[in-house]
Amino acid sequence: MEKWDGSAGTSAFHMPEWMIQFADQKQEFNKRPTKISRRSLSRSISQSSTDSYSSAASYTDSSDDETSPRDKQQKNSKGSSDFCVKNIKQAEFGRREIEIAEQEMPALMALRKRAQGEKPLAGAKIVGCTHITAQTAVLMETLGALGAQCRWAACNIYSTLNEVAAALAESGFPVFAWKGESEDDFWWCIDRCVNVEGWQPNMILDDGGDLTHWIYKKYPNMFKKIKGIVEESVTGVHRLYQLSKAGKLCVPAMNVNDSVTKQKFDNLYCCRESILDGLKRTTDMMFGGKQVVVCGYGEVGKGCCAALKAMGSIVYVTEIDPICALQACMDGFRLVKLNEVIRQVDIVITCTGNKNVVTREHLDRMKNSCIVCNMGHSNTEIDVASLRTPELTWERVRSQVDHVIWPDGKRIVLLAEGRLLTLSCSTVPTFVLSITATTQALALIELYNAPEGRYKQDVYLLPKKMDEYVASLHLPTFDAHLTELTDEQAKYLGLNKNGPFKPNYYRY
Amino acid sequence: MEKWDGSAGTSAFHMPEWMIQFADQKQEFNKRPTKISRRSLSRSISQSSTDSYSSAASYTDSSDDETSPRDKQQKNSKGSSDFCVKNIKQAEFGRREIEIAEQEMPALMALRKRAQGEKPLAGAKIVGCTHITAQTAVLMETLGALGAQCRWAACNIYSTLNEVAAALAESGFPVFAWKGESEDDFWWCIDRCVNVEGWQPNMILDDGGDLTHWIYKKYPNMFKKIKGIVEESVTGVHRLYQLSKAGKLCVPAMNVNDSVTKQKFDNLYCCRESILDGLKRTTDMMFGGKQVVVCGYGEVGKGCCAALKAMGSIVYVTEIDPICALQACMDGFRLVKLNEVIRQVDIVITCTGNKNVVTREHLDRMKNSCIVCNMGHSNTEIDVASLRTPELTWERVRSQVDHVIWPDGKRIVLLAEGRLLTLSCSTVPTFVLSITATTQALALIELYNAPEGRYKQDVYLLPKKMDEYVASLHLPTFDAHLTELTDEQAKYLGLNKNGPFKPNYYRY
Amino acid sequence: MEKWDGSAGTSAFHMPEWMIQFADQKQEFNKRPTKISRRSLSRSISQSSTDSYSSAASYTDSSDDETSPRDKQQKNSKGSSDFCVKNIKQAEFGRREIEIAEQEMPALMALRKRAQGEKPLAGAKIVGCTHITAQTAVLMETLGALGAQCRWAACNIYSTLNEVAAALAESGFPVFAWKGESEDDFWWCIDRCVNVEGWQPNMILDDGGDLTHWIYKKYPNMFKKIKGIVEESVTGVHRLYQLSKAGKLCVPAMNVNDSVTKQKFDNLYCCRESILDGLKRTTDMMFGGKQVVVCGYGEVGKGCCAALKAMGSIVYVTEIDPICALQACMDGFRLVKLNEVIRQVDIVITCTGNKNVVTREHLDRMKNSCIVCNMGHSNTEIDVASLRTPELTWERVRSQVDHVIWPDGKRIVLLAEGRLLTLSCSTVPTFVLSITATTQALALIELYNAPEGRYKQDVYLLPKKMDEYVASLHLPTFDAHLTELTDEQAKYLGLNKNGPFKPNYYRY
Amino acid sequence: MEKWDGSAGTSAFHMPEWMIQFADQKQEFNKRPTKISRRSLSRSISQSSTDSYSSAASYTDSSDDETSPRDKQQKNSKGSSDFCVKNIKQAEFGRREIEIAEQEMPALMALRKRAQGEKPLAGAKIVGCTHITAQTAVLMETLGALGAQCRWAACNIYSTLNEVAAALAESGFPVFAWKGESEDDFWWCIDRCVNVEGWQPNMILDDGGDLTHWIYKKYPNMFKKIKGIVEESVTGVHRLYQLSKAGKLCVPAMNVNDSVTKQKFDNLYCCRESILDGLKRTTDMMFGGKQVVVCGYGEVGKGCCAALKAMGSIVYVTEIDPICALQACMDGFRLVKLNEVIRQVDIVITCTGNKNVVTREHLDRMKNSCIVCNMGHSNTEIDVASLRTPELTWERVRSQVDHVIWPDGKRIVLLAEGRLLTLSCSTVPTFVLSITATTQALALIELYNAPEGRYKQDVYLLPKKMDEYVASLHLPTFDAHLTELTDEQAKYLGLNKNGPFKPNYYRY
Repeated sequence: MEKWDGSAGTSAFHMPEWMIQFADQKQEFNKRPTKISRRSLSRSISQSSTDSYSSAASYTDSSDDETSPRDKQQKNSKGSSDFCVKNIKQAEFGRREIEIAEQEMPALMALRKRAQGEKPLAGAKIVGCTHITAQTAVLMETLGALGAQCRWAACNIYSTLNEVAAALAESGFPVFAWKGESEDDFWWCIDRCVNVEGWQPNMILDDGGDLTHWIYKKYPNMFKKIKGIVEESVTGVHRLYQLSKAGKLCVPAMNVNDSVTKQKFDNLYCCRESILDGLKRTTDMMFGGKQVVVCGYGEVGKGCCAALKAMGSIVYVTEIDPICALQACMDGFRLVKLNEVIRQVDIVITCTGNKNVVTREHLDRMKNSCIVCNMGHSNTEIDVASLRTPELTWERVRSQVDHVIWPDGKRIVLLAEGRLLTLSCSTVPTFVLSITATTQALALIELYNAPEGRYKQDVYLLPKKMDEYVASLHLPTFDAHLTELTDEQAKYLGLNKNGPFKPNYYRY
Repeated sequence: MEKWDGSAGTSAFHMPEWMIQFADQKQEFNKRPTKISRRSLSRSISQSSTDSYSSAASYTDSSDDETSPRDKQQKNSKGSSDFCVKNIKQAEFGRREIEIAEQEMPALMALRKRAQGEKPLAGAKIVGCTHITAQTAVLMETLGALGAQCRWAACNIYSTLNEVAAALAESGFPVFAWKGESEDDFWWCIDRCVNVEGWQPNMILDDGGDLTHWIYKKYPNMFKKIKGIVEESVTGVHRLYQLSKAGKLCVPAMNVNDSVTKQKFDNLYCCRESILDGLKRTTDMMFGGKQVVVCGYGEVGKGCCAALKAMGSIVYVTEIDPICALQACMDGFRLVKLNEVIRQVDIVITCTGNKNVVTREHLDRMKNSCIVCNMGHSNTEIDVASLRTPELTWERVRSQVDHVIWPDGKRIVLLAEGRLLTLSCSTVPTFVLSITATTQALALIELYNAPEGRYKQDVYLLPKKMDEYVASLHLPTFDAHLTELTDEQAKYLGLNKNGPFKPNYYRY
Repeated sequence: MEKWDGSAGTSAFHMPEWMIQFADQKQEFNKRPTKISRRSLSRSISQSSTDSYSSAASYTDSSDDETSPRDKQQKNSKGSSDFCVKNIKQAEFGRREIEIAEQEMPALMALRKRAQGEKPLAGAKIVGCTHITAQTAVLMETLGALGAQCRWAACNIYSTLNEVAAALAESGFPVFAWKGESEDDFWWCIDRCVNVEGWQPNMILDDGGDLTHWIYKKYPNMFKKIKGIVEESVTGVHRLYQLSKAGKLCVPAMNVNDSVTKQKFDNLYCCRESILDGLKRTTDMMFGGKQVVVCGYGEVGKGCCAALKAMGSIVYVTEIDPICALQACMDGFRLVKLNEVIRQVDIVITCTGNKNVVTREHLDRMKNSCIVCNMGHSNTEIDVASLRTPELTWERVRSQVDHVIWPDGKRIVLLAEGRLLTLSCSTVPTFVLSITATTQALALIELYNAPEGRYKQDVYLLPKKMDEYVASLHLPTFDAHLTELTDEQAKYLGLNKNGPFKPNYYRY
Repeated sequence: MEKWDGSAGTSAFHMPEWMIQFADQKQEFNKRPTKISRRSLSRSISQSSTDSYSSAASYTDSSDDETSPRDKQQKNSKGSSDFCVKNIKQAEFGRREIEIAEQEMPALMALRKRAQGEKPLAGAKIVGCTHITAQTAVLMETLGALGAQCRWAACNIYSTLNEVAAALAESGFPVFAWKGESEDDFWWCIDRCVNVEGWQPNMILDDGGDLTHWIYKKYPNMFKKIKGIVEESVTGVHRLYQLSKAGKLCVPAMNVNDSVTKQKFDNLYCCRESILDGLKRTTDMMFGGKQVVVCGYGEVGKGCCAALKAMGSIVYVTEIDPICALQACMDGFRLVKLNEVIRQVDIVITCTGNKNVVTREHLDRMKNSCIVCNMGHSNTEIDVASLRTPELTWERVRSQVDHVIWPDGKRIVLLAEGRLLTLSCSTVPTFVLSITATTQALALIELYNAPEGRYKQDVYLLPKKMDEYVASLHLPTFDAHLTELTDEQAKYLGLNKNGPFKPNYYRY
């Protein structure tokens, strides 16, 4: 068990300024900006990614009545009204979406099957606050199958799939969420999850930290019964760390964001595919022969570079870290400063987690039709604000695609206004979401069942053995056959046959 | 500064049995097997790799006189006789080899230049025990240029390049080493390095731990003046850990084996190239269309798989660790058990660090002409001993290539008798050795200059900042230009502009 | 100059049965099936590909009035009414689309600039019948700039972009085309292009052969003044060959379909990207670790395999031709019969040009969730008809995506109902269209300016020198710098410094 | 059947000057330069490649007696003395080499088995002149098994493996060849093959055209009985073409050099592997991060670029042909003029077939330690002669490796003195030789069995069906399973189920 060392709020960087600033905002809890801009920090499915759920979306009657769900009286077929969704009648459509997702989340289904007998979450009362999608629904129903009672709210005011929320409500899950909540709705929904007579949560599953904060603020006594918090997002993990450092964290918390399996899929493997997808869907460009500069050669940059190289692009890399820089060299990429190539490249991609990596000066020097986009951790990498000046004309040519036009006619193609391309212009494959959801489920089981004293009031990484277990649950998807150590081999290597197989510092 | 956590003796595995056995052998210090077999544990240039120094080797008169160097009286041109080499007259040839190596080790030369003014090793008295090659000579002369006095012995009885040793002696370095030492010579040489009147070492640079052990055994008092040990090999590092655990380590030690840069080059990058090289030089085979199974998907396995895939082979992978297994899947390799493909593959490559990965049963089932070789950490991966049975005929067809012939005429092609292909049948590029040597030099500087108390009597990893510095010194080779953080960016990220840039657990 | 040898109607195959059948249909000119099914033979932008022109499409008022354009009275701003388009008022939107396309078709713009002075098409009266898109508009206006007069109709009843047609009409081009023509409209538009008082075409640019046939049928005398036909499609080229063989071709014709440059871009380079794009847009699947079988290893298959391998898929190939099969082996793909892997694969892709490559029997044996799609030359590769049986349920889950569900619940995912994935579910990059358009323009210039007697009444391939010229016009896009032969080198190689550089049989 | 169109003597270029010059030399048949320099034109195993036959070479007693084989009296075990080899006693060693080669030439062995019953070469009297290696021996014995009588000489004065020649002589083949023949020996050996009482050849298998010329010159009447010539080399094929053009070719000849299968393996597939092998064996360099310029993007250049890119090199390409240039762009390589990158690259590789591609001016501008080598068709690509000037020092550092040192100390590393790296510094895999040998055998069968009149007195390419057959014979090596067309499919495609499957102009 590796204790979270607190030295980093992201997987790659020490405590950054924006996080500190962000933490400061917590002081002004009631004044902070709208959910939307704040949410953009979270590396999860954002509002915009729901664009891809076109099939689902199509079921939603667009001329839906405008009554707020809070003002409606709805009951599910069993007569319960302990939920608040857009339209309970959409349940059937949502159920179909959930069924399709189940087929693509075999690991969670396997977990459901394996652990169902012993009900490892019997007695667990989980309050959750996540995006509400078909994939989350599979997670929630898995938790139910393992014995848990759940109450759920959305962690984002736009990302809820109304049909799925309806399907969950129909199945008896108290869900409080709809697409297009107001700020006030948002907190109201969270409150309805926790502030309920005769039921008190003993586990928290959070994505972004809002739920945790609400309880801290409004119902601090609840923590007496809470066995632990599982948090998925960079932001939420950072908040927990702040609490821990301040000595205010009063229950164990599990940081599932930094587990090996989740990290590799969220970054390297996912981005390797989504950079191509995002660029194609927005611009229909051809990759072959294009000159591209990728800023940053972390996992995300590595994925982008590998994909574009394979498609016949000529890729340049910028880096600040000499080790990553040397890796770029050995992988066959010219390591340059952005200035050296900015005039010649056809595409600029940021993957740094840093701010103002692409400045107005760079933008001024780009050639006509240059495409600029961001695959990194925040929307600060490209100094988009610097483009909002009178001499430049903005032209929206497609959804998520702006032409910014200079007085001399030069135009650059800005994607998603500098927000994350992955979330705005491509989709996150269900398989990646499956990795995350399985990790969350295992973290809940671990915390709930841990003998007293194993976890203190601190932030922990997922035990390596569980990380390995998440991976192993996904191998059957690929018809992959793991080799087992013989007793003799295990002894020789000094390993337990069931793992963990690597020391904590192993780099994979 | 990350303390070595002691949980692993190799980069990938927990304390293995062979290490424990090996440590046990230390008890019987004088009875242990010949150097050669023991040495094969060390992941450095082994005897066999010297095959590649053909140009150098050609200068050596093969009909050299057979007098033991210990019985000769030799003086260098300045009149010194404080050395013992094969033939001081070969100095000129050796000097040329060193000069060529200097051209390919720009990082060390840059370090020499940068640090020469301040002489960070002024006062250092370094006793070293490593392979004696042109590359080590560049290291030794760099240490000298930085202010150190050095005395040196060979860590392997076969690997010394006599001309290079002569050149060093000619330049005034007390070197005690030649190719083909006896066991007795070996310890005599080490003793001559440390047991010298009016000179006592204050730093140790070791590769394999023999020098360290000699001092422990014979001159334990010397440690009072010794500021630290720098150790490169897996084996030596393990020994240090044993000492530390037993409370017997009486000076700080630096484990340079597990630094990021060194690991990546020793394993991933080096093996990506040397698997092709080793197979071609021994068998002249064509890679295209061949079916290959690679056992183990760690850094070495990843390198082998990537190279063979790129050359048009069809590659299968076996793994015991589900995380690495999932990586293999995502990289496009079928994950199988060895039994599933053993009848159909053309090549079997082991990269596990484990033992008996390829058993006699597997060997019996291989098809005619199947090639079997080992890229892993030891020579135990293929059960070669099981092939030494009367019904099988061995036929040596080339250097390092045996045909093992079954009664029915089936033959398998065994390379290097199951020892490391990298060392036996290909060469280690000077660039890789440059990474190692630079790491060693920096570790010496760090330990020598550290304020008292920074390092306890324990085993340490190279500070990340120094790891990054090694990388940065090698970037100019690739004409690679690093980007510097602006003040604003550094503040935003919470980083020092000069690094370190990543938290310790970062996986690269 | 290579004469078209007539032995093949496609780039890969001898005269196939469906072509012969198709030719037979010509006898029953008035009875043949609707345009749509026939059109699917043509490897051009089909109706379905227009889905991607979402930006353009958005300008079209969807509640557009339903009056047939034939019944409207429209005038452009100069007072001309010699055109028939949906709505002349959309001209401005179309003009913007054309301007964007111009930026991505630098070769055509360069040609416009280079040849504008000498007006190589002065006096040319070109009648054209192609898809009417922004890219065609750039071609048309280039022809105009080179001195030609043009009249134009659409070669497909669905593919016309109304705004573009409007913009062309506004600029003075007599265009007769709109989206959603009836069969009768289709021929009426063609007739309006050729049957005009005081103007007779002397060049034909055709895509599919309908225009050519109309003139053959209705105005055979026109051929007296016609200098040549340029034909782009597989189908149209085959028709010309049939005419030639029957001794009825009365003017020279240029087959631009089989030029090297066009072929490579239409097949290898385009498909390498569009297979990924098509699969992602329809299914959001992850490629890593997926098992895929690609049927056919011609240019299209090679592109698909390379892309999927690069994305981490495990790819199997089926082939009938041993040479292509050996190429697949050398490129690292297992060559199998479809039956061997049909139970295990996640995706089946056909690229053969053959029929019933995937049969009902195969479909019955596929595993649950298997994706089936077609990248080949026709919609016959997958026996989709066999799936239209009562025991199977079809469920449309998205545009172009059907789930076909077996009685036991197994579902396969059929894309585009077995039609071309490239055209239905991804877009053709403008760069590829630029290659085609430039080839067409050069072929027109060649035929129009050829000295009498150079071309007989036969079908010709584009002269290699012109093929090379098309390529050279596209190099500046990549900032690519060609090397010129010295006089001495040209003499040594026996080549003209300006090309052609290769013999006709060179394989590239 | 495609007639050789005579427009090119190599696969890529029109009749080059050096060929014309070379043809001119034929006029001075008796005065022309030594075999060695002339031989270097031939793309076959040259003298230098025999370096790799180290295992075989070791059997040869290096202190072999110096008596000329012509002066020895030798008999094989059956009492025959109709041969002339170095030492008949080496037969056993040679037999083992042949047996090993047989295992790696399954296609030829399959052909032997399939055709043995019907003896398609019964009555054939073949006189051959090729390199004499284990692989040729397998070919020769296959021809024998198919019914032919053979007499054989070497086509190169250095390339004969004496043991193999001995083994063939022992088996009863009249072989006249040894390593180290004089010019006079060379012609004497050829003469002994053809000028024999009671035996007259009816088929010729030639590699380089010397045998053919000898018969033309000395025994022109023999052609009356000769059914055809099979020629493998670029040079020999060009000679045949010259004869044909001059109306002097009096029998049909088969150009097997330009068959698809042979070309792809000789160039693309072979060079993809041998560029890495050749560079590693000579320089032990690391490929990762190196900047490389490859001159020429034909099949050889494509192979080199793909391999180096895969190993992490940064590759630039130069081209004269815009089509190949565009391919380079689409494959992800920057297209440059040599001058643009000559100062920065670490390696320069020529693959053009042209002369003086790398000039002294380029060499002057290269950076220190730059490696220069040639993978092209001749040794003229690098202007090596320009380096033989007094101010430059040459230093031989290894076999095939020279340092050329400028007055300022800069040194470039020249490999194989600018001759073909493939032949000088790496080996040709047996599999590639198997393709060639099988092609030759099939060409002999075709010519020998063709009905009269099918082949005129002209030069022909191998019929595509036979080309496909060669490929199909090699598929079992890869356990590759070809798909067969159904009757219905064959009809649909207009193809014979047994091929040929493609039109002659198909590009693969």
